[in-house]
Amino acid sequence: MKNDFAGRLCSRIEALNNPSLLGLDPMLDYAPPALLEKARSEAKNPEDLARRVIFDFNKGILEALADIVPAVKFQIAYYEQYGPEGIRCLQDSLALAKDLGYLTILDAKRNDIGSTASAYARCILGETDFDGTRLRVYDADAVTLNAYLGIDGIEAFLEYCRAEGKGCFILVRTSNPSAGDLQDLELKDGRTVCEAMADLVAKWGDTVEGGDFSSVGAVVGATWPEQAKKLRERMPRQVFLIPGYGAQGGSALEAVAGFSQDGRGGIVNASRSLMLAWKKEEKGAACYAEASRREAERMQKALAEALCRR
Amino acid sequence: MKNDFAGRLCSRIEALNNPSLLGLDPMLDYAPPALLEKARSEAKNPEDLARRVIFDFNKGILEALADIVPAVKFQIAYYEQYGPEGIRCLQDSLALAKDLGYLTILDAKRNDIGSTASAYARCILGETDFDGTRLRVYDADAVTLNAYLGIDGIEAFLEYCRAEGKGCFILVRTSNPSAGDLQDLELKDGRTVCEAMADLVAKWGDTVEGGDFSSVGAVVGATWPEQAKKLRERMPRQVFLIPGYGAQGGSALEAVAGFSQDGRGGIVNASRSLMLAWKKEEKGAACYAEASRREAERMQKALAEALCRR
Repeated sequence: MKNDFAGRLCSRIEALNNPSLLGLDPMLDYAPPALLEKARSEAKNPEDLARRVIFDFNKGILEALADIVPAVKFQIAYYEQYGPEGIRCLQDSLALAKDLGYLTILDAKRNDIGSTASAYARCILGETDFDGTRLRVYDADAVTLNAYLGIDGIEAFLEYCRAEGKGCFILVRTSNPSAGDLQDLELKDGRTVCEAMADLVAKWGDTVEGGDFSSVGAVVGATWPEQAKKLRERMPRQVFLIPGYGAQGGSALEAVAGFSQDGRGGIVNASRSLMLAWKKEEKGAACYAEASRREAERMQKALAEALCRR
Repeated sequence: MKNDFAGRLCSRIEALNNPSLLGLDPMLDYAPPALLEKARSEAKNPEDLARRVIFDFNKGILEALADIVPAVKFQIAYYEQYGPEGIRCLQDSLALAKDLGYLTILDAKRNDIGSTASAYARCILGETDFDGTRLRVYDADAVTLNAYLGIDGIEAFLEYCRAEGKGCFILVRTSNPSAGDLQDLELKDGRTVCEAMADLVAKWGDTVEGGDFSSVGAVVGATWPEQAKKLRERMPRQVFLIPGYGAQGGSALEAVAGFSQDGRGGIVNASRSLMLAWKKEEKGAACYAEASRREAERMQKALAEALCRR
């Protein structure tokens, strides 16, 4: 289909020559002191303070990186922890990111039975009926999903992929140390659990019309490069959302292990290393967004070199 | 430990002689017309309308069932779909339920890497630091979790089980038709994926001090009674949260299949059948909460009979 998510994402990666994904997973103490001081003098209450600080912090980084980074991922836990005003901040940040030209991904790892998955899909990708008034709550371009419940938990999201050019990324091999507790268990047929998941994702992806890549992507951590290579064989048409680069320990070379042979089909997330770049610079607090930009440029260069070297 | 979640839940089930769980997963059109009309004349905007209708609807049912139903489960998707005001309604509904004596479960099926799981755990079970002011966002007694990521996604919640007497229910065998897509795959060692998950849950549950039952419970659907019996053998100390009764097709006899031999260790959820009971009665709209109460009494009786008959 025209304007499918994978097509839009791949075009933007190509245009900016950068397969990086900005992760905005903010905590109040990630913001430089000046933003906190400003909010303390203006905020009506603690929730309002959180909304102001996090939005201002996000805004600085989003504006500084808009012409070099193609997409942004918001991890919803970091907004939800600040209550309804945190959710309002997430809505405002998503809207700003779209205005600035980013593709937006909501990292929510949703999973539920059919009727509940429909409520999540309406909320994240579609629109909610408020007694006759239809409003979009998040209107993200794509969402992360967990398919432990099988297709029932995924189908409602695929409908938005088909009808509105939205996308999703399904957890296959996660970046965390205990990923193997379940994902590495060996099946009777010789596959591992995450390989079986990869086969399901590839199958479901083919039910959504698309180009070279499917709008049904996969989450494959940068911390497991050998698995990533094998999983690419099982999922030739999936865009890999690759967490684990930087603060979680994955190198650039490890992060690109799952890219397709022509160096496409992957987007590498960095959250803390980009958000907290200012803490590593002597005068970083005064120009935190510029520090994030310098780190984003280093990351872009590191990924480009890794794609040449591998 | 004293005042552990499983102990509190089992005591309350015993005191009310009712292993039913009220599921409040509301949509605007579940409320009777009078509530909608009242909100239309009072609300400032569509979001405010949703908050008022859903809260009033919940309040009626919570008050009507407080002396017969021990616990309530809120499925967060149905609140999140109404934006920040939906989240505010969830907070208010949780607080009211606790005031009325219910044990509260937030059905969020959270799953993420360690640092993000900590943010979710703070938000759902603990408290958030708002620049020096510590506030509880949801303060539920327990939460549902998905352990596809292994222990990393669970540990932060176990800490609240140990320190604050909170609880969790980990997805083992879900109630939906496609549950078997992943959960029924056979492992090399003869177990299925959901049996392997059951073994992990039993192991993790033993790391939390408790009585007969662990505060680390399991979600085991009413729609798969044969699996439930087998899973009970693997998880003798887990409280089973049992969805799938009623609207999803599970009978009372199927719902209690996973209870322990002495008829304990399970809590059976009903959402739509309780919330929408008024639509089945001729004059239901005028007294929707009483209709829910009558349905809750029928459910209590059906479960008691099933526990005798099996």
